[in-house]
This record gives sequence, structure tokens and C-alpha cells, in this order.
Amino acid sequence: MLSTTEKSDVMEKIGSRRVFSFADAFKLFEDDDSEMKDYLGGKGAGLAQMTASGVNVPPGLTILTLSCREYSKSLSGSSSGSVKMPEKLMQEVFEELTQIEKQLDRRLGDLEKPLLLSVRSGAKFSMPGMMDTILNLGLNDKTVEALARSTENERFAYDSYRRFIQMYSNVVLGVAKDELEYILEDKKESLGIKYDADLKAADLKDLVKKFETRVKELTGTNFPQDVKEQLTGAIEAVFKSWNNNRAVYYRNLHKIDHNLGTAVNVQSMVFGNFDNDSATGVCFTRNPSTGEKVLYGEYLVKAQGEDVVAGVRTPHKIDKLKEEMPQVYEELLSNVERLEKHYRDMQDIEFTVERGKLYLLQTRTGKRTAACAVKVAVDLCQEGIISEDEALLRVDAGQLNQLLLPSFREEDKRAAKESGRHLATGLNASPGASIGQVVFDPTEAEQLAGKGEKVILVRVETCPDDIHGIVAAQGVITSRGGMTSHAAVVARGMGKPCVAGCEQLKIDMANQQFHVGAKCVKKGDTVSIDGTTGEIFEGAIETHDPAFSGEFSTLLSWADRRRRLLIRTNADTPADAKLAREFGAQGIGLCRTEHMFMSQDRLPVVQTMIMSGNRQDRIVALDKLLPMQKQDFIGIFEAMDGLPVTIRLLDPPLHEFLPDLEGLIEEIATSKARGESGADLKRKEALLQTVESMQESNPMMGLRGCRLGLLYPEITEMQVEAIFEAAIDVAGRGIKVLPEIMIPLVGHVNELKVARQELESVAMTVMKKAGVEIDYKFGTMIEIPRACLTANKIAEHAEFFSFGTNDLTQMTFGYSRDDAEGKFLHRYLDGVDTEDGEKVKILQENPFEVLDFEGVGKLMKMAVEYGQSTKPDIKLGICGEHGGEPQSIAFADSLGLNYVSCSPYRVPVARLAAAQASVLADSGNAGLIKADSR
Amino acid sequence: MLSTTEKSDVMEKIGSRRVFSFADAFKLFEDDDSEMKDYLGGKGAGLAQMTASGVNVPPGLTILTLSCREYSKSLSGSSSGSVKMPEKLMQEVFEELTQIEKQLDRRLGDLEKPLLLSVRSGAKFSMPGMMDTILNLGLNDKTVEALARSTENERFAYDSYRRFIQMYSNVVLGVAKDELEYILEDKKESLGIKYDADLKAADLKDLVKKFETRVKELTGTNFPQDVKEQLTGAIEAVFKSWNNNRAVYYRNLHKIDHNLGTAVNVQSMVFGNFDNDSATGVCFTRNPSTGEKVLYGEYLVKAQGEDVVAGVRTPHKIDKLKEEMPQVYEELLSNVERLEKHYRDMQDIEFTVERGKLYLLQTRTGKRTAACAVKVAVDLCQEGIISEDEALLRVDAGQLNQLLLPSFREEDKRAAKESGRHLATGLNASPGASIGQVVFDPTEAEQLAGKGEKVILVRVETCPDDIHGIVAAQGVITSRGGMTSHAAVVARGMGKPCVAGCEQLKIDMANQQFHVGAKCVKKGDTVSIDGTTGEIFEGAIETHDPAFSGEFSTLLSWADRRRRLLIRTNADTPADAKLAREFGAQGIGLCRTEHMFMSQDRLPVVQTMIMSGNRQDRIVALDKLLPMQKQDFIGIFEAMDGLPVTIRLLDPPLHEFLPDLEGLIEEIATSKARGESGADLKRKEALLQTVESMQESNPMMGLRGCRLGLLYPEITEMQVEAIFEAAIDVAGRGIKVLPEIMIPLVGHVNELKVARQELESVAMTVMKKAGVEIDYKFGTMIEIPRACLTANKIAEHAEFFSFGTNDLTQMTFGYSRDDAEGKFLHRYLDGVDTEDGEKVKILQENPFEVLDFEGVGKLMKMAVEYGQSTKPDIKLGICGEHGGEPQSIAFADSLGLNYVSCSPYRVPVARLAAAQASVLADSGNAGLIKADSR
Repeated sequence: MLSTTEKSDVMEKIGSRRVFSFADAFKLFEDDDSEMKDYLGGKGAGLAQMTASGVNVPPGLTILTLSCREYSKSLSGSSSGSVKMPEKLMQEVFEELTQIEKQLDRRLGDLEKPLLLSVRSGAKFSMPGMMDTILNLGLNDKTVEALARSTENERFAYDSYRRFIQMYSNVVLGVAKDELEYILEDKKESLGIKYDADLKAADLKDLVKKFETRVKELTGTNFPQDVKEQLTGAIEAVFKSWNNNRAVYYRNLHKIDHNLGTAVNVQSMVFGNFDNDSATGVCFTRNPSTGEKVLYGEYLVKAQGEDVVAGVRTPHKIDKLKEEMPQVYEELLSNVERLEKHYRDMQDIEFTVERGKLYLLQTRTGKRTAACAVKVAVDLCQEGIISEDEALLRVDAGQLNQLLLPSFREEDKRAAKESGRHLATGLNASPGASIGQVVFDPTEAEQLAGKGEKVILVRVETCPDDIHGIVAAQGVITSRGGMTSHAAVVARGMGKPCVAGCEQLKIDMANQQFHVGAKCVKKGDTVSIDGTTGEIFEGAIETHDPAFSGEFSTLLSWADRRRRLLIRTNADTPADAKLAREFGAQGIGLCRTEHMFMSQDRLPVVQTMIMSGNRQDRIVALDKLLPMQKQDFIGIFEAMDGLPVTIRLLDPPLHEFLPDLEGLIEEIATSKARGESGADLKRKEALLQTVESMQESNPMMGLRGCRLGLLYPEITEMQVEAIFEAAIDVAGRGIKVLPEIMIPLVGHVNELKVARQELESVAMTVMKKAGVEIDYKFGTMIEIPRACLTANKIAEHAEFFSFGTNDLTQMTFGYSRDDAEGKFLHRYLDGVDTEDGEKVKILQENPFEVLDFEGVGKLMKMAVEYGQSTKPDIKLGICGEHGGEPQSIAFADSLGLNYVSCSPYRVPVARLAAAQASVLADSGNAGLIKADSR
Repeated sequence: MLSTTEKSDVMEKIGSRRVFSFADAFKLFEDDDSEMKDYLGGKGAGLAQMTASGVNVPPGLTILTLSCREYSKSLSGSSSGSVKMPEKLMQEVFEELTQIEKQLDRRLGDLEKPLLLSVRSGAKFSMPGMMDTILNLGLNDKTVEALARSTENERFAYDSYRRFIQMYSNVVLGVAKDELEYILEDKKESLGIKYDADLKAADLKDLVKKFETRVKELTGTNFPQDVKEQLTGAIEAVFKSWNNNRAVYYRNLHKIDHNLGTAVNVQSMVFGNFDNDSATGVCFTRNPSTGEKVLYGEYLVKAQGEDVVAGVRTPHKIDKLKEEMPQVYEELLSNVERLEKHYRDMQDIEFTVERGKLYLLQTRTGKRTAACAVKVAVDLCQEGIISEDEALLRVDAGQLNQLLLPSFREEDKRAAKESGRHLATGLNASPGASIGQVVFDPTEAEQLAGKGEKVILVRVETCPDDIHGIVAAQGVITSRGGMTSHAAVVARGMGKPCVAGCEQLKIDMANQQFHVGAKCVKKGDTVSIDGTTGEIFEGAIETHDPAFSGEFSTLLSWADRRRRLLIRTNADTPADAKLAREFGAQGIGLCRTEHMFMSQDRLPVVQTMIMSGNRQDRIVALDKLLPMQKQDFIGIFEAMDGLPVTIRLLDPPLHEFLPDLEGLIEEIATSKARGESGADLKRKEALLQTVESMQESNPMMGLRGCRLGLLYPEITEMQVEAIFEAAIDVAGRGIKVLPEIMIPLVGHVNELKVARQELESVAMTVMKKAGVEIDYKFGTMIEIPRACLTANKIAEHAEFFSFGTNDLTQMTFGYSRDDAEGKFLHRYLDGVDTEDGEKVKILQENPFEVLDFEGVGKLMKMAVEYGQSTKPDIKLGICGEHGGEPQSIAFADSLGLNYVSCSPYRVPVARLAAAQASVLADSGNAGLIKADSR
């Protein structure tokens, strides 16, 4: 429950006073931001702070949230359900108003220089649009004339008045919106015009009269001409709006305390359309694209705020203000600087100039690109405005890898969409952008790439046979498969864009084309794909290469100093390992060996091995693989000289290395129906039998991981032999090698115990033979719930635990990721339909993206505690995809893990996220992301 | 670590004494069985107890385990690794021996009446075969002649002597076994004989000489003729054998303390082959088949123990002893009665009569059939020998359902095997025995059964389409699929025998026959199947119907009084519900609604529903199903009048109701290759598209359970409507109905919250419309690890939790049961091969049979504690198959669950097991089966 309490020391300062000018309000709370919001509400606090920072804010006053609470209390205590507004409060308001009138040389209800006011709600927690607002208060049949005269704009004056009547009648007098809206519509119809903007001053005058008549008919009294009565009514309406239905609903939804109450802000209105010395504009304190420290923005002379946004006239660049209104420009510069210093961050500011006088209406933290975020954070720190810790927190770690990949410009994509070139959107399986001609065959992709062509490989789904095509392509599109499909995993590993599972694409392999809706894209046609968003476009969109700024390196160096977690990488090849090391990886946390089995030259040998009926034949095939595996490890060890390399032994079910069952059945049936026979059919039938005998209902939970190695020890023995032979080889050349052998999918201590015993004896034999000692470790993936529950026993045989959070999430939730993402998880995240037509979200986050602290996290916490109870210095890490996701990294930090491991392109993200976790933990905010630990 | 400590009070009694006669030994420890074993070892304690109970045991003495410890200590303290046997100990032994000699009127080494001794080890915990034994000690070149004379059997005497020399030489003198064995073999070869038994007295005499010569050659000294030296050497050898390699290995394996030491038992030998007044035999105190209270057994005059077992001569029934040796018979009767009273259970006794004197050599608890176990337990209680609690513990609950199903007699199966009629053994998927003619087509099975024929349905695997055939058949055989395959589940539900996944059977559907090895079984051939063991036989084996004894009912009535857990049943049909109620079920714990969707008349409607592209079309189909579902529930509610019925909403993935993908692909490919086209092919292709779009990689973790109901609420809404309409219908007829709606596969609280909200509103509407209030509950299966981890939240929306331990086990272990059992689990249970050629078990128990307390149990414990923390009175049960397994039931009791639910035929098992759990818990032994709770 977001709540608050009235503090006695503050209450002493306040006493019986309830109304404060923006300037006085700030003094009351000094710099306690949260306390200030308790009493002034969010908007009131902002206005107070802006005023205090010395910029020109249109003067105004704030009525404390206390008054709303007092009013609500007296209301609920009254039998009639209505009470009079407390006279004392309004007296205070009018007194304070006098100060404002003096300051502006305008008076509420004055017939020459009328003061107009806005009355706005503002609670502690933002409740956008839930409560009421009144603008242009102070207008009546007479002051409207004064406004017309002083602005020399009768139309503007009457338009403001008719708007005020509409707003006030609805909010304060309870007149249904439609009542006056119909009159307006009738008017336009009778005039044959479509837009409000086409109404002339005379039309608006007439409308005002009609509105006043209708209000009298409906309420029985005249529309209030007494401006004080107007103000009292407006304030009361805001108080009441705290308890309107939508506000109560909103608070229930967001668990906001119903007793907080809202503050009321009464502020003088200023007009940028007053004369030619008036203007309105928006500006950023720095360039929001690049972060460069220059004033950046645009403005319009003699215009209102809406005009800038609406784009009716083309606004000027802010530089022109220097020429047009040099004094105002100077003032703006200094105001803007003051605000940035006050808020200690780049600001996005709305300003109005009224008759040569500058007013700042609103300031907020400016939205920015990742590049800008990095530069601003580093610059602000170097300017002495924020600390290094704050700088680290200022950059959204998740955004960071935008800076490492080619990308499309948003405007280019928008243009492509507008011209109808957006083809489809699939899963954003691997980020980055690329262009190329469509190719359907992997071998053709390889050939074309060999000739220097850029190609995009399009497949229904990819399999190990296609790997040469993926290597050659700029990017991959599949029409089937999820975030963990073969294409997705391989592409992510290579840092290559991939759009997966794009079911809208109907691929027609026979004719080398695909259909999407009415369109047909043929082989050779150019497409552009954005793997960061999953979008596919016809034709070429220019890609932009990443530019690493000096600030980027600086920020990461600060992060490295600050973080506690080590960052490793998931890399299966020397190239990936090298890249990751350049990105700052401190070791390999997951080197998958199955991808090494999948390269085109090895797959036939692997298949022969699998189809062998006995151990002896398997060993013959494995002997052929041994030197290749050894070479793989040599390359990786060389790249990671001096850093630990965790190698996971073979994990996937063996049938993943064999052809697809359905295709085989189809082929055989076709051959038979054609009356074919002979050796070829026989061979296919034999193959079918192997594939069928290996078929599993739920391969994810079948014969894989350490189960494979326990049943066919010769496979993992070959792998360990290759690892140690490679280690000995590179060690002999002065390279420091630290292999960590990881046994996957352990659920029972005996699995690890037996597997380790066997494999360690192989390692010993290899080392003894060479007479070389290698510094190695044995450990296990923790990816089965049972492993967490019995981690105390498992730790007896492991020097390290590496959480395989992908599989752990699958089994903890009972979600097969491949099925869930396409079949129901998107509905869980978007919301399922309910009887009353509302959509209700089942899950707030995709647990495969952000670690589920509550469930999976609880298991991990148990595993850490149990593991450490047996082996206090056991090494702990994450090697699932969560290892590159900031919230999950923060959770890993809170668990006290030693490292996280992620794909090379996520390494900088992880470095920053780990530092942020340390900063937050030190400031006592880590609890926010800790799992429920009961 | 199984260990012990020397207690000071006992040590005081013992003082410096280390040797006790069997009679004295008993007095030392009174009736503290465990303490007695600490000092006397298991065998010594047994001999002491038998002696104390007043039966004639060949007299003897026991050397305390303390001596072994003392000897080992002095040995480890000696630098030479050898010590002399303590003189004081041997002095004590010889003193005690004098008493025995007096008692038997025989003396060790006497040349007329030589006393022969056995020297045996006996530790606290049985270590079968690990340590050494010496028989016939006391024979030498002279006493052997005395033995020959007194037994009038020279051959026997020399055979005993040569055996003694072989044993002693090996065990005490360290002569390799082969050394003397080769001489024996040579002898036989030279004589042209094959068996030891064909050696004549003269041959044996010669052998003895040859042995003695060889021993002298090897050891340098004569074979000891001094009988005291023989005894000293034998005792020392037993002490030493405590630390031989195999004993140390065994203790490591079984975690037995190496410091315990072994006792040594020195006992006089008796000879049943002495003369015609001698005999040997075995007997049970009651009939081990039926439990009837009559002496039961057989004996042979002038014979040794081995002769009875070896079946060389046909033994007499024990009754004949009454005629042949009336006095001995009377003595045996009274001895046997005394032993049964002492041990308070049916005994299996070995006895020997030597020259008219009865000796009891061994007594142990007799093995028995389930029927016998029940009768004996009840009888012993009614005879006042044991309490009701003890009676309850005396019957193996797991054996109990043998009594409820038809079965084959073991001897009939043995005979069938001997005559080569055993065809194959598959998985024992559903217990019971039946006979019938083989049929391959379900519809044909139905037709034949309609004509009164008994059929056994044989299929590769069954599917919902086959259900009418399963109903009609006596039993089912499949060549594919595991314990949870369709056939297995359906058959178990019907209490019908099923042998599943029998891969040896090569089914040839085209020719309506199957091959197994060289044999071929054709349609119409008779087979017999034993679902309890998984065996399949050619031809008919007579089945025997269960006979419920009065004792059976009595025992269960005691169990009902004693147990804390309620027993419910898993039943999907009124017939099953009725049956289970007759077996004592107190409600339905799991009524699966999917089987209702699978009957032949409904499947087409279900398929239409699934293939509908939109909600509206689905509703049309569902409207047709509604009245049928309602009728199902009416029948079940009627059967369970007054008892709660837990109904699980639709759980399996929808594609289970559609045809098989592979078959469709084959059909389409065949049609196409034949150049067919037209409507039929189009329809098939459309169907293929639906089936393909529903295909999942891991359906177990895909779109099923509550996920279905959240995406297609109309399905579960129809079910709830049917449930409440049915409830209202039967309530109107005075039947008490207590529906409990169970939402399956919940992993996140929001799933339950939203589903319940929607469904409860349907229930309200139905009740409101009828103006009837039904007493209902909503709850959930707890079968996803995450549900356990967040049970505190889930409990907010559930009135009950029912543990779905099948799925929970699958996900906690990461085992897909269908895949695991065939692919690797059997290897985990049998043992995987290791480098050194040994097999090592990874798992001790199949976690799908016996609940895994350590892992799955820990999750359940969390769920119980979390659930109760939110809702202290939440109802808790198990509805997985573990609900019928005794160890798992005991665990459920220890968790404090309210009930377990199991298939009808397991209900009596569960009643007894639950009572046993209560008894054990009250006696403080429940800890044995509690999960590790750290």
C-alpha cells in the first residue's frame, strides 16, 4: 500500500495554515522530496521546486493535501452528503492570491487587467486524468471583454470563455458534457463548418449566450459571474474528484492509500499568443539524440502551446530566439541551466513568453536515446553535478546493447511503414538490423555470400544442417519456432539479427518465394529485417553502424570499479570468445559443445555414431570427432588465455542431430506409393526406424544432459579427453588455461557423483600420460527444480553451480518455452478475456526474459543456501539468458552469486547492470528486487 | 551411520567377562533387543532368545563383540600387524565349553564321543556372507574315526573331515581355496565321476591324506590335530574377518560403523543323519498359504538339512512325524508354540532330531501370502498375542490388492514357463490376470465380447478411439507406451489387467498377428496375461477369483478406526465410483472429465469443437456436449450420495482428441503420389493443418490444464454448468451432493484467481436460475513446482489443494514419464555401467511409484506450510498415483494431509497403509519416512 503518515514535526511547522505560495511551500520542506510530495502532491512539489530554483514560473499557490483529507472527513461525517467549503480555507486562499495579483499587476475579476487562473489537482502519486482540472477561471461576461481588449484578440477571448463555461459547468455544476457539446455541434452544422477553429468571434459570442441559457435551464441558476464563487467551486470540485469512481478504481488497481487526498494548485495563466512579444516553445537542456551540451528545441511567436505540438505553423529552431528576443533567450539559457542543476539531469522544458516576459510552465526529465543517456550521465558527473554512482544509475542498462549493433533510424522505418513496405512482424529473436536478398536454400546462401552478396536466409525453421547458411547470411527469418528455436539461439550466439516464428509468412519452398497477405516476395528480392523489434520490410532501409563514444568506455570503466559480480560470456567459438573479451568478459560461463557437433563436416560422423548399435561402433565414430573437438577447445583456450572457461558437456537429445521424422515419413510414403523399392528406400526405412526409436513425447524432459553421458559414457569421455588434450597443448605454449567442466541437467546427487568419478578419471589419465597438471574444476548446471531442493548433497561433488535459468524456468512453471510463447504465453502477458469484457494479465513479465523472483528465484535462493551450507566457497553463477537481463542481474547480485554469463553483445549491459545492482544494494534498495523470502 | 556406544550400566554388569552361554547371554540383556544385538550380534541374540524361550537349541556360547573390538585395537596397535589371541579370553571359552560338554555328554577331541563345533561370526547388522564360518571343528585324524563309529557312517565322517580341512585351511591357515579344490577335482576326474556325492568313503579318506600333505607343503606345518588350537585359530579368524576387504566394502556401502566388531558364536553340532532315530526338517507354525493354525512342514529321517532342500528324497509331511516319532512330535509342537509366542509371529523353523532328541537350529519369521498375512495378523491379535496396532503393521499393505483381483497360481505359471509357453514380459501397467483370444481391432473386440467371447485386445498403442474395445476386452496388451500411456491409465481405472510397452511383440496389423521371437500368435489364439507382473503366456492359465475372508474385513475395520487420513478414490464413471465406495472410499478425490470426452459418440462433437475457428462455433458444439456431461455427473453424484466429489476440469492438450499427425502425413503423401486429388484430399489437408498448428514440442508443458480454460473459457464454463445442473438435479431428489471443482495445472495465483472468478459466476447463475443452493468448493491441483513455491498466494483463492504428484514428480525431476521409463529410468534403477565394470544405481526407487520425499516431498512440505499460513483450515490431499502407495501414504500422513485418493482397487491398500502410518507416527517412527526438512 503506497501510503503516508502525518509527521508531528512537519505538522508543527504547518500549524493551522493550509495554503502556501509556490515559493513558501518549498521552504517548508527544504529538500525532502518525498515529504514534500506528501503534503504538496507531485505537481505542487514540482512547481515549488521550480520556483525555488529561481526560474520564472507563473506564480500560484498550493492547498495542502491535508485540506482534502479534512474536507473528505467532514463530508463523510455529514448526513446530507454535502458540506460548505470551510470559510477559513477560502480566506487563506484569497489572502495568498492578493500576493500573486500584486506580483503580476493583474487582479481576479478586474475589468482592465483580469487575472486568469488554472485550478489543478495533484496527489502524491501521479493519477493521470483521474481527477479534474479547470482552466481560464476568472472569466465572466465582463472580464472576457477586458481579455479581448488586452490581447487584441476577441476570438481568443471568447473561445477561452466558452471553453471555461463548458469545463466549469461539467466539473463544478454537474452538467452532463453532452448538453453543451450538442449546442456546439448544432452551431457548426448550421454554419456548415467542420472544425472548432473555423468558428469566428461572433459565433463564439453567440455560443457563450446559448451555453449560459442552457446552464440556467439545467441548474436553475445563472452561470456564476462572481469570480470568487468560481474559485471556491473549482477548489471544492477538485476535492470531490479525489473520490470519484475512476479515481477510486485507479487507486485500488495501483494499491494507493485512499486516505492520501489531493493537493490543489491554483496558478496564474500566461498567454504566449498575447502579442508579437509573446511566444511559446519547448526545449531540451541538451541534445536528446547525442547528449551534446547545447540548448535544443523550437518555438513559435504569438502562439499557444498547442500550436507547437499541432504543427500548424512550422516552428523556429531555438537558436533563432537569440536573434528575435535576445534578452528572453539569455534568460531562458540561465533558467534552463538552473533547472538542470536543480534536478541534476537533462530537462525537457515548456516555456511561454508573455509580453516579453519569460515563464517556465513545466519541466521534466527528458527522454533520450541510449547514446545520449550515456553521454549525459558521464558529462553530468564530470561537470560535478552527479556522482559516479548516480551516473551509473542514469543509464538504462537494457538499452545499452543498442549501441553495439547496427540499427535502422526510427524515421526511416516510419517512412517505410507509411509507404506500405512493412511486411510482417515476428518474434524479435536476435537483435540488430540488416539488409539482403532473400534466399531459401542455405547452400545457395553460402555461394552468394562467397561472391560478396548480402543475403537473408528464409526458412520454415532451421536445423543443424543449415548452419553454413546462417553463418553466411546477414540475418535469418523463420516462420516457425520460438525464442529458443535453433535459428534464434544460433543467431543470438553470432550477434546476427533474426526474426523467428513469423507465422504470417507462408513460405512456398517449391517456388522459392513467400507470401504475406496479398504480397509475394521472391528469391533475390531485397528485404530489411530488424531483429530488435521483429519487423520485416520490403526493400532496403539504411543501417547505421554503432559508434562507441569515449563516454561509453568511461561509464563502463566506472561500472567495472563498482560492480561485485563478475561478467562472463556464453561463447562456443574462438571468434565469439574474442569478441566477448573485447566487450569486457572475464571468462566463459557457458561453452556449449553441441554446436560443435553440428557443423556440416562433423554431422555425418555424429549421425554414424548415433546410429551405431553398440559401444564399440560408437567409439570408432567418436575417435574421428576427438581431434576436431580438441581443435575447438584449443582455439577457445587461446582466446581466453588466463580466464576460466566453463565447458558444458553434450546436452541436447541425440535425435536433434538426425533428420526430421515427419519429412522422412512423407518421403517414404511417397516413394512407396510410386511403387519404388530398392536400396534407397531400405536405407530410408532403416533411418526411419532409428529416428522413430529415438522419438520422445517431451524431449525437453527426456534422454538428454547428464542422462546421455551416464548411458553412453563414451561420448562425454571423448569430450573430456579433448578438453584436457587441448588444455595440455596450449599450456605447453605458455597459455594459462582454467577449464571448468560442467555436467548438465543433474537432478540427483548420484548423477553428478557417478559422472564426475568417471570423467575425472579420464582427465587424470590424460594428464598423467602427458605429465602435465592442469588447474581444473568440475561442477554442474542447476536447472532442475530437484537440484535446487537437494543442493546440499549435490554440492558435495561440485566445485561450482551454474544456474541454467532457462530450463529451471521451464520446469518451475511447467512451460515448454517453444510451445508456450506461441500458444499461450503471449495471451498471459497481453491479458486473457473475461466475462465482463476486460482483459486481465496473468503474468506481468515474460519469465523467460525477466527472472521470476517469486518462484524460480525462491528455488535459486534455496540452492545457494543449501550449496553454501555444504561448501561455503562454492562458485556460483548464472548461464541462462537471464544472465544478460538487468533485473535478473540485480537479483543475482542480491543472492550473492559470483558471476553472470551472457552472450557477447550483452556483456556491456551486464557490466553496467551489475554495477547498478551494487549501487542500489549499498543504498539499501536491493530489497526491491529480492525474492519473497518467507 | 549405523553405530552403537558402550553403555556404562551394561558394562558394569558385564565386567571383565567376555564369554556367555546362550542362556546366560539372554539374562544379561533381558528384553532389550537392540542392546542385546549390540553385544551379542544378531545371530547370538537369536540363539540366546531361542534358548531362553525354553526350546532345545544345540548348546553353545557367544563371545561378545567387545572382544572383537579389543582384538582389532590391539592389532592396530601392534607394529608387526599380528598379536597373540588373549589367553584370558580362550580360558573363558574353554571353561564355558566344559558346561556344554557336560550337558551333551560329549567332549571336544574325545575319542569316543567327540564334540563337534561350529564357529560363526555375527555382527549387530546382518552382513550376509561377508565374514567367515567354520563347521565340524573338533575333527582330527582320530576323532573322525570316533565319528564314523558313532554314526555308523564312515563316508559321512570323512566327508565332514575333508570339508573341515578345506574350510579351516582356507579361512584360518590362509591356503588359497584352489589349492585343495584342484586336488578334489583331480580325484574325481581320475575316478571318472562328476559329483562330490559319488565319492566313496575310501576316496574321501585318501583325499584327507592328500589335503594334509598339501597343507604341510604350503604352510610348513602339519594340519592342526590339537582341537583347542583349532578352536583358538577359528575364533581369531572370525575376529580378523571383520576387517577383510569385502566386509569393509559392505559396511561402507551400507554406512555401518567400522568400530562395531563382530561377536563369535561357538555351537555344538548335531546330526540328523546319525541313525534311524535321527531326522531333520523344516516347519511353519501356521499354514503359510492360508494362515490356518496348523503345524505345516516336512522332514526326512536319517538325513541332513541339505537333503530336505535338495529334494534328493521325497520328504514326509510333518503329520507323519506324529506316527514315526510321537514324542518328538509332541516336543516339536510345544517348542514351536513357545517360539511363536516368544517371537509373536508365525515362525519358519529348522529342526534336527539326533538320536531321538529334538534340537531347533534356527527360527525366523515365516514368509507368507497376502491372504495368510491377513489371517495370521488377525488371529494373533484375537489370540491375545499381539495388539491391534501390531496386527495392522504385520500386513504388507502393498500386497493387499492381490486379494481383490483375479490371479494365476504361481505353480501354474511355473508350469507354463517350463513348457515354454511364456511369450514375453512387458510393463505391469495394470494388475490382475485374465485369459482371452487375441483381437487386434477394438470394434471386433466389442462384437466378440457381445457374443460372450473373452478377448484380449492387442494394439501397438491405444487411443481414445479404442475405448469401446478396451471396455469389451478382458485385458489389454500394447507394444508401445509406458505406465501412463492411454491403455495403462484406462485399464487401471477399470481394474482390468494391462501389459503395456511390450516391445518384444512385433505386431503385424495387416496380417492380424504378432511375432515374438520365433513364435507367431494369430487372431483368435488364446493368451493369458498377468498385469501384476507384466507376463504374457500362450494358451490358457486358470485364473482364481479373490476370496474376501472375514479376517480381511476385520483388519480393515481396525484400520479404519486407527487411521487419521481419509481415503478417497480416483473415479471417472458411476461404476467405478460405486466399486470404490464398496471398497471403503470416502469420496472422490479425482474425477477426470477428459475421459468423458473420449467416448465414441462424443469424440466427433469434441473434434468439431476443437476445429472451430471461433468462440461462437465452439459454443455450438459445446452445447451438444453439455447434456451428456450433465448425465455423467448425475450418475457419479448418485453413486457418491453424501460424500464429496472432486471434479477436475479439462486437463489434456486438445490435440489428444485429434488424429495422429504422422498417420495423416503418410496418408496425404500416399494420396498425392498416386495422383489423387479432390474433396477427400482437401479435407485431409485441412485436418492436417489443424493438427499441425496444435502440434507441440513438449505437450506435457504446453497448452493444457487451466491454460486451456483461460484461453477458451467456454469449455470449462460448459463443464461447470453441467456440474451444477447435475448437482441441482440430484439434490432435488434428496441426494446429498458435495461438488469440489478442481482447476488443474495452476502455477501462478492469477491463473486460479481469474479462472475461479469466471467459473464461480457461472455456478452462481445456474444456482440462481434454479433457486437452489449447492454446497460447493473451488480448489486447485498442486502439480507445478511454482505452485508449491507460491502456495501462500494460491491459497487465497483455493479451499483445497490436491497434490498431483505425477506431474509434480515429472517437473521436479525434469523427467517426462512416458520417455523416461523406456529411455533411461530403468537404467537408473538397475544401475549404469562404470569404468570398473560395476553397475551403480542412480536411483533407489522409481519416483513415479514411490514418492521422492527428498525432492518432491520438500516442495510438498513447503506447499502445505505456505498454504496453511494463508488458510489454516485448507483441505489437503493427494490425487496422483502415489495416493495408493504405502510409503507415499505414510509421507502424506506425516505432512498432515486430510486425504489420499487412489484407484478403486487400491482403496483397501490405502486404508491399511494410512492406519500403519498412524501407528508408526504414534510410536515415534514416522521420522523414518519424513522428508529431509533442513
